[in-house]
Amino acid sequence: MDAEGKVTLRAGGAEFALRRAVSSDVAAIVGLLADDQLGATRDGGDLAPYLRAFAAIDADPAQCLLVACAADGDIAGTMQLTFIPGLARRGAWRAQIEAVRVARAHRSRGLGGAMISWAIADARRRGCALVQLTSDKQRQGAHRFYERLGFTASHEGFKLRL
Amino acid sequence: MDAEGKVTLRAGGAEFALRRAVSSDVAAIVGLLADDQLGATRDGGDLAPYLRAFAAIDADPAQCLLVACAADGDIAGTMQLTFIPGLARRGAWRAQIEAVRVARAHRSRGLGGAMISWAIADARRRGCALVQLTSDKQRQGAHRFYERLGFTASHEGFKLRL
Repeated sequence: MDAEGKVTLRAGGAEFALRRAVSSDVAAIVGLLADDQLGATRDGGDLAPYLRAFAAIDADPAQCLLVACAADGDIAGTMQLTFIPGLARRGAWRAQIEAVRVARAHRSRGLGGAMISWAIADARRRGCALVQLTSDKQRQGAHRFYERLGFTASHEGFKLRL
Repeated sequence: MDAEGKVTLRAGGAEFALRRAVSSDVAAIVGLLADDQLGATRDGGDLAPYLRAFAAIDADPAQCLLVACAADGDIAGTMQLTFIPGLARRGAWRAQIEAVRVARAHRSRGLGGAMISWAIADARRRGCALVQLTSDKQRQGAHRFYERLGFTASHEGFKLRL
């Protein structure tokens, strides 16, 4: 991010301002999470737990929750980056991407690709050796998208719900 | 962890002390990372980058690098836990497990299972809604191990090396 903490992404002939999310963005981000083939049953409703989670994200310097805003101020996309130090691979830092969503009205115009490409460049600037993410096996379209961006599906992603 | 920051794991008729790693453990942990089918070409050599990485892990309250020590003090296993706040799933915290290794001399006696079971219980105590990890698709034995422990390989794990 530049000195003002904002960058400009270009996609589909339009410009989007990418910036850190603030608490007044939370309702719109939850809307994006809920408007999703898998998130529909998992997200939405009372904002209070989301605002508590936002406070935890915002207080942790290893977390970077971002929103991409259209010219009219609408939140067109979101993603969360987490920077994780580790011993493996000669003490490599990893950047992890979670919760990538693009609003329906802004899909299929390259905004997601511009967001992920920026995240990769940011990880490189921060000296990370690896960028990683997991994607539900039901999201076939997303897998092709990540492969086009240079990712390799080299790992199994295991989850256990508590 | 209890008041002394130490717990006892039982595996294969032996006891292991599970505790937070300290800097004097780093050489032994790197030995475990290097003595591995995939880590052999990636890890070992000069300790300096590992000690820098250890300092970053140790300074971050979201990170928990653990070692399991045998009765003779040998480091028999290691794993790193990362606690990640997020908005998805109604503001759920996730526990992520990375860099799980068990020393050759201590394998196939249940120590790895005891470590992961403890990590799952710890994630539950901390109020996490999900435990997640990725495992290289070449590690077939590890996949059966995680499935026995209750994990589901529901996701593709994408990596991009920088």
